Amino acid sequence: MHRSHTCGDLNLKNQGILVVLAGWVQKTRDLGGMTFVDLRDRYGITQLVFNMDTNAELCTQARKLGREYVIKISGDVVERENKNPKNPTGDIEIDVKSLEVLNASKHPPFTIEDKTDGGDDLRMQYRYLDLRRNPIQENIMLRHRVGIETRKYLDSIGFIDVETPYLIKSTPEGARDFIVPSRMNPGQFYALPQSPQTFKQLLMVSGFDRYYQIVKCFRDEDLRADRQPEFTQIDCEMAFVEQEDILNTFEGMVRHLFKVVLDIEIEDFPRMDYDDAMKLYGSDKPDTRFGMTFVDIADVAQGKGFGVFDTAEAVLGIVVQGAAEYTRKQLDKLTEWVKRPQIGAKGLIYCKINEDGSTKSSVDKFFNEDSREAWAEKAGAEKGDLILILSGELDKTRKQLGELRLHLGSELGLRDPKVFKPLWVMDFPLLEWDEDTERYHAMHHPFTSPKPDQLELINADPSKVKANAYDMVINGVEIGGGSIRIHDRELQSKMFDLLGFTPEEAQAQFGFLMDAFQYGAPPHGGLALGFDRLCSMFGGSESIRDFIAFPKNNSGRDLMIDAPSPIDNKQYDELFLKSTHVPS
Amino acid sequence: MHRSHTCGDLNLKNQGILVVLAGWVQKTRDLGGMTFVDLRDRYGITQLVFNMDTNAELCTQARKLGREYVIKISGDVVERENKNPKNPTGDIEIDVKSLEVLNASKHPPFTIEDKTDGGDDLRMQYRYLDLRRNPIQENIMLRHRVGIETRKYLDSIGFIDVETPYLIKSTPEGARDFIVPSRMNPGQFYALPQSPQTFKQLLMVSGFDRYYQIVKCFRDEDLRADRQPEFTQIDCEMAFVEQEDILNTFEGMVRHLFKVVLDIEIEDFPRMDYDDAMKLYGSDKPDTRFGMTFVDIADVAQGKGFGVFDTAEAVLGIVVQGAAEYTRKQLDKLTEWVKRPQIGAKGLIYCKINEDGSTKSSVDKFFNEDSREAWAEKAGAEKGDLILILSGELDKTRKQLGELRLHLGSELGLRDPKVFKPLWVMDFPLLEWDEDTERYHAMHHPFTSPKPDQLELINADPSKVKANAYDMVINGVEIGGGSIRIHDRELQSKMFDLLGFTPEEAQAQFGFLMDAFQYGAPPHGGLALGFDRLCSMFGGSESIRDFIAFPKNNSGRDLMIDAPSPIDNKQYDELFLKSTHVPS
Repeated sequence: MHRSHTCGDLNLKNQGILVVLAGWVQKTRDLGGMTFVDLRDRYGITQLVFNMDTNAELCTQARKLGREYVIKISGDVVERENKNPKNPTGDIEIDVKSLEVLNASKHPPFTIEDKTDGGDDLRMQYRYLDLRRNPIQENIMLRHRVGIETRKYLDSIGFIDVETPYLIKSTPEGARDFIVPSRMNPGQFYALPQSPQTFKQLLMVSGFDRYYQIVKCFRDEDLRADRQPEFTQIDCEMAFVEQEDILNTFEGMVRHLFKVVLDIEIEDFPRMDYDDAMKLYGSDKPDTRFGMTFVDIADVAQGKGFGVFDTAEAVLGIVVQGAAEYTRKQLDKLTEWVKRPQIGAKGLIYCKINEDGSTKSSVDKFFNEDSREAWAEKAGAEKGDLILILSGELDKTRKQLGELRLHLGSELGLRDPKVFKPLWVMDFPLLEWDEDTERYHAMHHPFTSPKPDQLELINADPSKVKANAYDMVINGVEIGGGSIRIHDRELQSKMFDLLGFTPEEAQAQFGFLMDAFQYGAPPHGGLALGFDRLCSMFGGSESIRDFIAFPKNNSGRDLMIDAPSPIDNKQYDELFLKSTHVPS
Repeated sequence: MHRSHTCGDLNLKNQGILVVLAGWVQKTRDLGGMTFVDLRDRYGITQLVFNMDTNAELCTQARKLGREYVIKISGDVVERENKNPKNPTGDIEIDVKSLEVLNASKHPPFTIEDKTDGGDDLRMQYRYLDLRRNPIQENIMLRHRVGIETRKYLDSIGFIDVETPYLIKSTPEGARDFIVPSRMNPGQFYALPQSPQTFKQLLMVSGFDRYYQIVKCFRDEDLRADRQPEFTQIDCEMAFVEQEDILNTFEGMVRHLFKVVLDIEIEDFPRMDYDDAMKLYGSDKPDTRFGMTFVDIADVAQGKGFGVFDTAEAVLGIVVQGAAEYTRKQLDKLTEWVKRPQIGAKGLIYCKINEDGSTKSSVDKFFNEDSREAWAEKAGAEKGDLILILSGELDKTRKQLGELRLHLGSELGLRDPKVFKPLWVMDFPLLEWDEDTERYHAMHHPFTSPKPDQLELINADPSKVKANAYDMVINGVEIGGGSIRIHDRELQSKMFDLLGFTPEEAQAQFGFLMDAFQYGAPPHGGLALGFDRLCSMFGGSESIRDFIAFPKNNSGRDLMIDAPSPIDNKQYDELFLKSTHVPS
């Protein structure tokens, strides 16, 4: 071992002992007679001191140490004159007796500090240096902690970690697969799993009863910000359960994780119908850290001659408490904000409830004091509040007002990343109609079961059927979701039929699962949580990339190893493949 | 929840309570007035009883239940008349009050029993049924237990679980990569990792200090029996360590696993030089559960006119204790065994040391009593023992005698799968000369460091250089191995040069790693253990396939999901690929 202690170990209790430390030079300060070196490792920083008077040779050597040099020293632990109470090792320093440079370092391309001067691409190219920075290192350690505590908890309640295969079968339904040519089976391909969905269901058919896995999944999608082609899920499934059992189990797990990882007690873990979430927040993943829920003011706003409202399917408002004093400029800025193409509203109507009880709106021409008071009453707005109103098509208006609500929440500081408000959103529709392809899509996935009391609706009006499906949402982020699955061959066939599969396609792609249902499949269900997202949530960040050791950029490239990259002709030949790509 | 208890929960303490159970019908016995059903789940088997006298309708229903039906019952826990002490629930049975069939089952294609009548292919096609069988289910649960205990142990000593990427870069060195075409980067490919080797080294450069991962790895090799294209490793790396630290750390881990998983205390964990292993066992992974080590009898066997010995590079023997009474037939059988093409020996010489002190060999024509006694003395053979001798080229003879030794060990019952003898084999050669390609190959991998005191040999005689490399061997199986790595750019370049890389090739493939070494890379090393193999070892089996939930067959196929399989033309087009395969 190149050390007797780490750089986070030593304090006054160790005074007087001879120690060996190894680590990186964080910085050196040459004060003439003395040279100080901050030595860093994963565990902390320890100050080294070299004295020109007592050992000129060693001190001269120390002066030459550059940032990020890896050194090994031995020396005595001594009490510091100028203690640093912010550093756990700040009461001591090491009076160095010997110094060995284990490895030199070129000058790093960006500073290895909490706030770095490195741009995104540079940091990604030298990710191994970026990972030395405290904030990133803490993220990765937090991720480890969330992972191991998840495993320990699930193990403690009887879940079995079962590895499912990575080389599986391509199924064009759903997102696009990454595929892997098989050399031993020419002309044939494996696919990388988008999730272990069918395998975990088969494990329930096998009687494993409670399964989990923290597992990589792959989707070849055009990457939006903060989407990775490979991502990690906490994947779980249980047999002989109903929806209530699953909600309780994973509510318990998430409460436990908040407690052991962050020492936070989650108080409420409410449940909300999908329909209510859409009605009150315009979103199936509401941020419930703050109120500002939607009010429908159509009945008091329509029929007064204001064409915009009168022709609208929906007139919805939110009340911003204490914002009646917003200036014209502030209101114009909000109007501009909702009119941006990303939001797409045509305009924003406001109504101030002044402190003296009078009201003032942007459409006073059409609405008198009485009408405006009726709005206020309907919206529950009080003196000093501001009502903001959007109108138009119901779905669009909800979406736009939902975005505005989140924007205001951020602006007003109502979205504290250290406050956590989880909830279950439930009773999702089973299917959604897709205008483009003119067919139904599974809102969750094709294996989700309809609510048992709505089975007969499936033929009459499929769009009305609700599913036994649920999402876990924390602070407006969908952390994961799941469902009670179909475990009956006939119903599963019916489902594929609704989704536009021919019986032959269904059998070719999912025959193994439907066959399995004929050999005693138990009722079962489960969920999957996005592990990258859960970790970034725990870390109080919105970027998942900072919680992945070696992420890819938005073009799916790893800039550090320079992948993907061309392959040899020999590799093409062995796989019976030819490229049709003409480099431009 | 479809149950109040599991099928393994109930005993006399629960007598009289009303319970709800759910599970699979293991078997039914119709005794006229009574029908008994064995209900099975992951946790056990509970006997259900239906009485024709008290509830004829229910009993009639129960009689119709087929094997593997999934049912839910409620009933009272009652004491059994005929108790079954072998079953933890064998003191009670359930007097059933209600019965619901949750799912029917077709007749399974093979019996779901400990010993099944299903052949390999059938079991793989219906793996979800095969996984219901107790032995397989226990294997998968053992695997879970080994995994979680490994994680807990490594976490407890400061190892961080860091996920490394699965979509990396193809490097033609080493085994063949599986590759993944990139749609977003046409003409370019990712590769699936053969191991996270370079990433874990970069994590050391990043200062993570102690890393582990239980991770899938991929090799597109022609499959030998018990090789899987995807397999799992316990992958570890440590910084600021020397070889001794790594050996102690993972010896500790393996001892811990034996203790917590199997309740076995490992006594010795010896170390053996590679040279000694080859000399004494003819193998770098000796099975040390039994002796029968090699003796070199060349000096007492050569020069007596027996041409076979006289022209041989090596004359090696093993002593089989108490085997002097082997019959001619037994000895002929052994001779035939070593002459099989898989072993390839030209013949086998024996010498019996009879109980009366006389000796008898198969080559008495050339060797008189005195000569034979000299053999016995040299070999340490005693009265009643048998000496078996092979001769020829050194390497081949060692290999052949090693195989014969293992064969005899098995025949004589010296290789008890419940006895565990681990050891470290150390001081491997750094390089081995490959006759075919006329160049050196890395014996471990290109990142392994030479022993520091042998650095100067690298230029003089590379084949003589020993590496800081070690294998963990248990019962003759290589469970894993590792090395102290190179952490110096110059030495790494030298290594690539020795392995036949041009500087350009080295930079293109591993430039990121060599660059990283210039920014303060600490001394580091690690190892990887084969997780599939470790689990099968713990389970006392030689087949890893029975310890993998969804394994592939020897053609790399998953017979259950029928993968790999052809893909759509649209998928080819999106990836700018064309198949050149002409189906025959």
